[in-house]
Amino acid sequence: MAKYAKIPEATVRRLSSYLKCLEELESKDEKVASSSILATICNVNPAQVRKDFAYFGEFGIRGMGYNIKELKEHIKKILGIDREWRIAVVGIGNLGSALLVYKDFLKQNYRIVAAFDIDPVKVIGNISERVGRPVEILHVNRLKEVVEARNIEIGIITVPPTEAQKVANQLVEANIKGILNLSPAPVSAPEHVKVRNLFFTSALDNLVYYLTN
Amino acid sequence: MAKYAKIPEATVRRLSSYLKCLEELESKDEKVASSSILATICNVNPAQVRKDFAYFGEFGIRGMGYNIKELKEHIKKILGIDREWRIAVVGIGNLGSALLVYKDFLKQNYRIVAAFDIDPVKVIGNISERVGRPVEILHVNRLKEVVEARNIEIGIITVPPTEAQKVANQLVEANIKGILNLSPAPVSAPEHVKVRNLFFTSALDNLVYYLTN
Repeated sequence: MAKYAKIPEATVRRLSSYLKCLEELESKDEKVASSSILATICNVNPAQVRKDFAYFGEFGIRGMGYNIKELKEHIKKILGIDREWRIAVVGIGNLGSALLVYKDFLKQNYRIVAAFDIDPVKVIGNISERVGRPVEILHVNRLKEVVEARNIEIGIITVPPTEAQKVANQLVEANIKGILNLSPAPVSAPEHVKVRNLFFTSALDNLVYYLTN
Repeated sequence: MAKYAKIPEATVRRLSSYLKCLEELESKDEKVASSSILATICNVNPAQVRKDFAYFGEFGIRGMGYNIKELKEHIKKILGIDREWRIAVVGIGNLGSALLVYKDFLKQNYRIVAAFDIDPVKVIGNISERVGRPVEILHVNRLKEVVEARNIEIGIITVPPTEAQKVANQLVEANIKGILNLSPAPVSAPEHVKVRNLFFTSALDNLVYYLTN
């Protein structure tokens, strides 16, 4: 897919945002979206929407807007989420528990197939009820074995910050492909493993910047 | 602060990320950071680091790097987080509960001063223990009154997606300045209220894009 290699990171981020907006429109039985509607919902300007989509060729009809279903499929293909991704969550405290029942994971192609903790006897009956199946929490020392056995490609880190890098190292050792770190401490990994650190403070920093300036 | 008005959104985002990395270095007793160290930790290239900082004038010393303490203060000032921001969290399920004890909020100038739910009798004894004070959950119908009485400027939404826009409307009505929405359903608000929708799926989309391409 080398032809997509030069998409700016900001565009990649917006594509994901457009996808959410398209799903929102679809849930309201809309079939077609104009760039101005997408722009309004996604908080960008219409020219930006058209520019972003132009990276991938023409798929809007002038004066008509975009077919929502087609555009969704196109974006999913570009992002690589037109297939299932198998995920392990490490650290089943409040945040990890929230992810196990996060509606959009269940709905989309992100499938959490393993949950790990250093305390495998954690009681999460409430979650089991909500996802409609028993949620089994495994001891983190089984990480490598289970990642391999269940073809897990992505690890989400939701342990306390003091443990985050250690867990990242364990995930690397388990031959994970990508890491999403939600702990407040940044983690790093060798270059062949992709890492995204997502900090709630950064989302607030961004908000505050625009409130201040 | 009009002179900062033209900072690209991607730079604002990276500034926040640099700040996290500087704190990480500081916690290891480092005093000075080179652009290449910052680049490595933050997953960007050194030229990008220097370019980002150049928006705000010169504050590195050539060949010496940046004084971590000074750079931190500078970034905080630019972002507007050199003062306290008072926050309400609406929706005290697993995710809301996680935020109440999120280490970096407690450590930084983000102060959660109110927690709301439609079920105000929720038992969160464990959280009370961890934050070292009783966490009082108020009924969401007291939102407007409490936002005003406690000078709350930011609302974080952690309710189920079906309730998210409703809560956003209530926050707008309570004269909130900014909204960070962590529910999977995008919310919108009138232009005078800034909104950031943070989706966990978007973080995964971004990771998957770079795993695929």
